[in-house]
Amino acid sequence: MSGLFITFEGGEGSGKTTISKLIKEQLENEGYQVVLTREPGGVDIAEQIRDVIIDVRNTHMDKKTEALLYAASRRQHLVEKVIPALKEGKIIICDRFIDSSLVYQGMGRNIGVDEVYEMNLFATENILPNRTIFFDIKPELGLRRVYANKDREVNRLDLEKIDFHQKVYDGYKKLLTKYPNRIVSIDASQDIHSVYLQVLEKIKEIL
Amino acid sequence: MSGLFITFEGGEGSGKTTISKLIKEQLENEGYQVVLTREPGGVDIAEQIRDVIIDVRNTHMDKKTEALLYAASRRQHLVEKVIPALKEGKIIICDRFIDSSLVYQGMGRNIGVDEVYEMNLFATENILPNRTIFFDIKPELGLRRVYANKDREVNRLDLEKIDFHQKVYDGYKKLLTKYPNRIVSIDASQDIHSVYLQVLEKIKEIL
Repeated sequence: MSGLFITFEGGEGSGKTTISKLIKEQLENEGYQVVLTREPGGVDIAEQIRDVIIDVRNTHMDKKTEALLYAASRRQHLVEKVIPALKEGKIIICDRFIDSSLVYQGMGRNIGVDEVYEMNLFATENILPNRTIFFDIKPELGLRRVYANKDREVNRLDLEKIDFHQKVYDGYKKLLTKYPNRIVSIDASQDIHSVYLQVLEKIKEIL
Repeated sequence: MSGLFITFEGGEGSGKTTISKLIKEQLENEGYQVVLTREPGGVDIAEQIRDVIIDVRNTHMDKKTEALLYAASRRQHLVEKVIPALKEGKIIICDRFIDSSLVYQGMGRNIGVDEVYEMNLFATENILPNRTIFFDIKPELGLRRVYANKDREVNRLDLEKIDFHQKVYDGYKKLLTKYPNRIVSIDASQDIHSVYLQVLEKIKEIL
């Protein structure tokens, strides 16, 4: 597969969505073909699964059910959108991928990173991103940004208590140590332009 | 857990649903508490997942996505309905469980029985039925019954070609050899009353 698979990871309000649009614009101006996508979702069946996951009525969802739904959504999105784009030589920028499951379900919900990783291998067949950019911002600050943005719909995960988001943040820090060659960190607490420049630099390193 | 977990397995049109209602009625008359349920579904979140699985528009669903969705639905149903009923000492009769995944996804779709089994352990934590009754009927006959029943909605799986249903049938036969203590077979090609009596006998053996 001749394309480049880049994933953005980080807590709520870390600016991943905003930055991904700016990066796409810049890379396209430079002549690259860029596909912007997100998990859970990105293709019709995966969006249907996403609807079940984020539905605010589903607060009684078991944590392993949730992990399996994320993996199902991941599988469909990977097969239908990511792999075809990579085969066409495109740059695919994906908002969240397997690391989100390792951190949110494996650590945040205490299922265990190894158990979540093993189950996800069924979905990914060990396809990993060429580079993963971790948007490093403390959860208090990220959540403050989420609530300041009135256009953004608040979903079930936003409603989790702050200590859950703290566990997620600590989880990402652990993954950085575990995968030092694949995951790089940028300071996402800065202003948008500064974050954009950092991300662009990290991507340019592997172009 | 003091209850009894019984699952019904078999191809389309094998009479599982009809028989399960008759069995429930009989056992309740004898003073047992019986819970009738089905997979995929049985509880609200699992029904939402079921809707995604059986939607006739989702013909492009990847086979591993499908297997993960069945496991997600299974997990929620197990935690929310099966385990609580077993703890209350009830008899739970479940239309389809893990064997359906082993046969339909593992063999019918060629993912592999072991791979599907491993992934399902994440969902079931190795909880298995006390007894599984296989409704043995040749796929041609079962499907003829399905299409003769105008009240029954035709779903995505009914539309599969006959050789898929044949693979499923052969798959069940293999499982019978693999789990001879748990799975017992009854002749489902006979009339309803005769099938009912066979199933009742198999259940009475473990009451």
